[in-house]
Amino acid sequence: MGNQKLGKQTFQPELPPTVIGHGSVGGKKESAGPLGRHFDHTCQDDLFGAKSWEQAESVMQGLALDAALKRAGLHTPDLDYLLAGDLLNQCIGSGYAARASEVPFFGLYGACSTMGESLALAALLLSGGYGTNAAAVTSSHFCSAERQYRTPLEYGSQRTPTAQWTATASGAVVLTNRPEKGISITRVTVGKVTDYGIKDANNMGAAMAPAAYKTLKAHFEDTGLSPDYYDLIVTGDLGKLGSEIVSDFFSTDGCPLSNYSDCGLLLFDMDEQDVHAGASGCGCSASVLCAHLLPGLLSGRWKRILFCPTGALHSPTATMQGESVPGICHAIALEGGH
Amino acid sequence: MGNQKLGKQTFQPELPPTVIGHGSVGGKKESAGPLGRHFDHTCQDDLFGAKSWEQAESVMQGLALDAALKRAGLHTPDLDYLLAGDLLNQCIGSGYAARASEVPFFGLYGACSTMGESLALAALLLSGGYGTNAAAVTSSHFCSAERQYRTPLEYGSQRTPTAQWTATASGAVVLTNRPEKGISITRVTVGKVTDYGIKDANNMGAAMAPAAYKTLKAHFEDTGLSPDYYDLIVTGDLGKLGSEIVSDFFSTDGCPLSNYSDCGLLLFDMDEQDVHAGASGCGCSASVLCAHLLPGLLSGRWKRILFCPTGALHSPTATMQGESVPGICHAIALEGGH
Repeated sequence: MGNQKLGKQTFQPELPPTVIGHGSVGGKKESAGPLGRHFDHTCQDDLFGAKSWEQAESVMQGLALDAALKRAGLHTPDLDYLLAGDLLNQCIGSGYAARASEVPFFGLYGACSTMGESLALAALLLSGGYGTNAAAVTSSHFCSAERQYRTPLEYGSQRTPTAQWTATASGAVVLTNRPEKGISITRVTVGKVTDYGIKDANNMGAAMAPAAYKTLKAHFEDTGLSPDYYDLIVTGDLGKLGSEIVSDFFSTDGCPLSNYSDCGLLLFDMDEQDVHAGASGCGCSASVLCAHLLPGLLSGRWKRILFCPTGALHSPTATMQGESVPGICHAIALEGGH
Repeated sequence: MGNQKLGKQTFQPELPPTVIGHGSVGGKKESAGPLGRHFDHTCQDDLFGAKSWEQAESVMQGLALDAALKRAGLHTPDLDYLLAGDLLNQCIGSGYAARASEVPFFGLYGACSTMGESLALAALLLSGGYGTNAAAVTSSHFCSAERQYRTPLEYGSQRTPTAQWTATASGAVVLTNRPEKGISITRVTVGKVTDYGIKDANNMGAAMAPAAYKTLKAHFEDTGLSPDYYDLIVTGDLGKLGSEIVSDFFSTDGCPLSNYSDCGLLLFDMDEQDVHAGASGCGCSASVLCAHLLPGLLSGRWKRILFCPTGALHSPTATMQGESVPGICHAIALEGGH
């Protein structure tokens, strides 16, 4: 038997790695949302004791990782590697956070899909026989993202109805390949870069929806499973518009999804918190995973979740040069735990 | 037996994956250097037919990958995954290049260490039993890097003596886990983020040298090998100053390196091409690997090379906020081939 490739994009470990720790951090607005009381750490000024928003991201990653390690009963020297990424130019949120942890480090860039990418690589490396424990960490920050991608907050720019609100949040997961009871990563579908020609950088949901649809389709084709095998299929972060597009794609295929949600709809109160199309940012799917989905698997609310973070692989420079916005989505099957 | 972890940071595949293809691309200045005639593709206006320097990077990655696939006798659908990264904000050189290739994609950010990171992950994933063929690709471009990291070229800014010249270059390697004769990746030492407090963003060599030294030390401690096990130890891209620091560290330890060089010293003519401390950029170590080191292993000039790309994980924003420059270095042992 051994580790297997199923179909064209899906990998299945013979001995699925187990989630032994998770940690989540949220900012002020996130702490006022429906998941607020589930975060391990929150902060009312969004600086987390740092001097800049960029440095705050590194602090948030450290807090999330510490919470995950605490649940796992481990310390940083127990980690064989750390896989991390964020939205900041040159991924400095992760690089500076990793400086403190002294763990062999793989820096990743998958935009808002990074939690999927880091979990995928951690699961494949561990089940491939390399090391015992690994951590996957990502973060995003509303204030650093706004000034980097759009305009400085001080301008007070108006947001389009399709815009999403970058989460000030971080999530960390610790995995092991030791035989443990708990939530395991049973399958990983690695996404392809998908571009349907959307050029509106304020409509990330529409740009990323085709990537989510294609990865989900590939997952079901590769594994032979039907969507209702999972109690919950959750993309992230397509928001309101993008998730409706994914639903439409499946309905058009004659296979409407009855068990589908999106991390961009779960982090904030969509009626009360004025976030337009919903939440976004690497930290959104990561914190929804660690404050909502993993606890729900542990409590028995769900038995099987297909967690599918999505990312838009563009940049302000690419947009200014007239490029469209390519998307990517990785699917991670999480099972058991209760 | 199986795949093994040696010591604290080194991984050793039971069945080392084999390099079955390599491709390299260089710009005008690179084509005039000592490796110029070994590139698979060069271009005299550094645009490679694209409309912007950023888009040129995606073209260069495509050309390098095509050359590597051609040598391997493969096509993109034969690849189980593509691991790529570059220096551009949000790694758009790689994201847009991967859009064309339609291969499951892992985006990486390791600054100029990215060729080491992508080779490490490709080797570990394949030898872990996941898939058959993988590609590792990186690129950099002098003109896009200057305007992003320093000043637009049009300003004609003067460069410090410690400054390095970002290579306009790309390299691609195709690996397989099928039993093949050729160069194999026998060991991988994954680096830690290392920061000795250097704050001069025009002295990357000094900032990255401690990371190179620490990874090399870890490699020799973990494996029990001595430096002279390898015919050549090559870091990249520390340039003149950084590589002297690494030499000094080892001499101080009572273990001077007799077989040591740096990719930043090999790409350009250090006397004639006015590059100050040498070459840099993800594309430097990648193109030196693919136009010089791998061909030298195949011809029997060397039997064993320890290839150790180095990266500086900072950003202009971090520098403006007064942060020091953390470095990272991954070591990849390449053996055989002749």
